[in-house]
Amino acid sequence: MFAPDELTSDGFLGGRLTVLQPRRGYRAATDPVLLAAAVPASAGQSVLELGCGAGVASLCLAARVPGLRLAGLELQPAYAALARENAAMNGVALEVVEGDLSAMPAALRQSFDHVIANPPYYPAGGGTGAADPGRERAMREETPLATWIEAAVRRLAPRGVLSLIFGADRLPDALAALDGRMGSSVLLPLQPREGRPAKRVILQSRKGGRAPFRLLPPFVLHEGAQHDGDRESFSPAAAHILRNGGEFPFRLI
Amino acid sequence: MFAPDELTSDGFLGGRLTVLQPRRGYRAATDPVLLAAAVPASAGQSVLELGCGAGVASLCLAARVPGLRLAGLELQPAYAALARENAAMNGVALEVVEGDLSAMPAALRQSFDHVIANPPYYPAGGGTGAADPGRERAMREETPLATWIEAAVRRLAPRGVLSLIFGADRLPDALAALDGRMGSSVLLPLQPREGRPAKRVILQSRKGGRAPFRLLPPFVLHEGAQHDGDRESFSPAAAHILRNGGEFPFRLI
Repeated sequence: MFAPDELTSDGFLGGRLTVLQPRRGYRAATDPVLLAAAVPASAGQSVLELGCGAGVASLCLAARVPGLRLAGLELQPAYAALARENAAMNGVALEVVEGDLSAMPAALRQSFDHVIANPPYYPAGGGTGAADPGRERAMREETPLATWIEAAVRRLAPRGVLSLIFGADRLPDALAALDGRMGSSVLLPLQPREGRPAKRVILQSRKGGRAPFRLLPPFVLHEGAQHDGDRESFSPAAAHILRNGGEFPFRLI
Repeated sequence: MFAPDELTSDGFLGGRLTVLQPRRGYRAATDPVLLAAAVPASAGQSVLELGCGAGVASLCLAARVPGLRLAGLELQPAYAALARENAAMNGVALEVVEGDLSAMPAALRQSFDHVIANPPYYPAGGGTGAADPGRERAMREETPLATWIEAAVRRLAPRGVLSLIFGADRLPDALAALDGRMGSSVLLPLQPREGRPAKRVILQSRKGGRAPFRLLPPFVLHEGAQHDGDRESFSPAAAHILRNGGEFPFRLI
């Protein structure tokens, strides 16, 4: 477990959420907030977050959509404990289960309307993997992204929706891992600024979906041509999500 | 062969090229011109176009880059003959070979610095295939896009570049077909208008490339929010390519 002095208390959604996070280690920034804003969940539906960490994505989703049944899977006991504490602190009923997504705990072997994940960046074959697509493809059986997607697809109910956020450079692996059970996929590129390549993407896909793949126009996170010192420069649409707890101004899937 | 009254004579690149095309059947519009504008070829290099049709992409490339060694493969004898006629009419040395890309003719069993293609839209399993990704994925062994890519990869020299233009809805299949021999892939979404989903994409990939996949900002073809009657409304950057024979204002791969 984390000692109190190893933690910081951080506000999300303009202060609607307060979340404890480790000073060192994985710290949520905008990714889980953007992921939660994209999930087309409605009251009464069930949501499983794979690798929920301290719980930020699920808590953001709960803040926007009341009445969800929320579950999270987390490999590291210290993060799982933190997610439980964060859920309680924010009055959210999030069931956190410790375990490995490649050996799904029995408590989560059920169907969900939504599966969401913000998988860690995890180059196959060690630190050189990211710059070595050939080796990475060859080792795909062992790359976590395909394993994450496989575990997610298994947990989805018919017509259930998978929502992922990940680095744009992993797109070939992610699309290759979506097999014939998934369809109607939609890709939203997240551009740091107008005219720049996308660094992150949100990919949604429906189990049993039959509509053609769609590539949406990019969503621009920051205004202006370059980084503007310490001044926050989110675009109005991004600020609506990150500061007001809003959703995207369009529907993805 | 086509009878003269089955053909039209059309200008491309603001009249720099004149091309005979069948009145009915496949007629080149902007796709082969955009494809040609993206190819990073330089004088002295060799280029193979798979499915060259009447030859528009190769002729556009020749108009922009002098000193290339150009070859085209075409399945349909009438189109192959037309490509030869168009090449001669425009003073371009394009070697057109009739044949099937899944059984590459001996004359083309050599290595090329570039392979380019504008594959036909070809839903696997008949007309319902496009709306049925599951069935399409299941039948991937027989879908032409994977076969086109496989044939292209085989013909590329080490460090050779594949350039493709195809419907955005085929992206999952295309990326899945790029195996470990290809890398450094770059995707350019082509948006009909600002803020609209991409209808077409240009995908480039390098044989033996090791750089991460990149998702570029979309290239917008038309100005204005909607179709403006018969008035041509190309964006300045698109008009530079389509009317002046220019290249993209940035390098892809």
